[in-house]
Amino acid sequence: MDIEKRLRECGIVLPEVSVPLAAYLPAVRSGNLLFISGQLPMEQGVLAYKGRLGSELSIAEGQAACRLAAINCLAVLKNNLADWGQLVKIVKITGYIQCEAHFTELPLVLNGASQLLEDIFGEYGKHARVAVGVNALPLGAACEVEMLAELR
Amino acid sequence: MDIEKRLRECGIVLPEVSVPLAAYLPAVRSGNLLFISGQLPMEQGVLAYKGRLGSELSIAEGQAACRLAAINCLAVLKNNLADWGQLVKIVKITGYIQCEAHFTELPLVLNGASQLLEDIFGEYGKHARVAVGVNALPLGAACEVEMLAELR
Amino acid sequence: MDIEKRLRECGIVLPEVSVPLAAYLPAVRSGNLLFISGQLPMEQGVLAYKGRLGSELSIAEGQAACRLAAINCLAVLKNNLADWGQLVKIVKITGYIQCEAHFTELPLVLNGASQLLEDIFGEYGKHARVAVGVNALPLGAACEVEMLAELR
Repeated sequence: MDIEKRLRECGIVLPEVSVPLAAYLPAVRSGNLLFISGQLPMEQGVLAYKGRLGSELSIAEGQAACRLAAINCLAVLKNNLADWGQLVKIVKITGYIQCEAHFTELPLVLNGASQLLEDIFGEYGKHARVAVGVNALPLGAACEVEMLAELR
Repeated sequence: MDIEKRLRECGIVLPEVSVPLAAYLPAVRSGNLLFISGQLPMEQGVLAYKGRLGSELSIAEGQAACRLAAINCLAVLKNNLADWGQLVKIVKITGYIQCEAHFTELPLVLNGASQLLEDIFGEYGKHARVAVGVNALPLGAACEVEMLAELR
Repeated sequence: MDIEKRLRECGIVLPEVSVPLAAYLPAVRSGNLLFISGQLPMEQGVLAYKGRLGSELSIAEGQAACRLAAINCLAVLKNNLADWGQLVKIVKITGYIQCEAHFTELPLVLNGASQLLEDIFGEYGKHARVAVGVNALPLGAACEVEMLAELR
């Protein structure tokens, strides 16, 4: 698969990976697994989706936030690859969604990230996942997405 | 160990694995690790435990919910095995419990899942675990249990 | 690196590992990965940091809580090593912070754990991480820290 072509077709430009603000790394590899730190829906260094599902943000906005956080995961992933041929597959994502206590549509919101991964990687993008609602996230972000990938 | 016998003795019939509603999978294997997607306390396709610990649900109901979510994890696990002999051990579970902010008995609630794993698998069921309280879960479920298993 | 010397220099005495209260283990190894169960900010068997960031606890107290929970992770880690030379690196931590819904300084709080890991292990302590706010934790703890380490 030509991943760069798929990214272009989906209109995605992977951002620069921002430097963590503390003594941690955007990703750490152990064996064939690459553990990518939780990513927020940042765009050009600015938090693009702030607020709470179930009150301040619509489902569509939540999906866009998860898609954007996943794009930031892919930027970190690419940074840890010699080239895309080194990626075996996406193994798992965990999506933490900042929401009101009555909000239940978490899977629908996290589909914003899952659909992106299938669009870009096809069969190799099909992952296990966990969707959880939380009451607070860094910067007040709408979501945080953590990713695990298998590399050659 | 005869796992099917243990399941029968515990009165457990593993359900059919339901098809995920988006572009993700019930489980993904990488190396010897099987990452099982977060499972809800579903029974015959219906959410059996809905609501919040610390107000709407008792400890016993929360434990039953965690047990049931773990049973759904085992159904996914079995679906990914040629036979139970392929299972080396349960490595870790993460239990997300939907609860009120004042609720602190999360370990006791998650014991519903942990005890099941010991009952079925004995020493091979002894896992690492994380118990966390959250304000919202998919469908308003009482809990969500994620499982990691080691396979041959 | 002489890890025992670094611990002494940082004034850290690793505590005894307390026995889990249910059918789970403080840590489980699979391949080269050691999965350490979520640890609370316990000191000599007592919860040292209880309460909620954003109201009851200051940032500095939250950082101290995360540092202490990480120290408890290191106690479990050491218990699973023949000696420190067996540790390859810290791979990932997940920090769950008990907080008010408006609280956003989760990364700053979790730095209490991240900084400790760098202080003790240097380059081998640089990890991937996830910082999440939650509404409830076991015993009402201020934080819970989960750790993943790579061993030889």
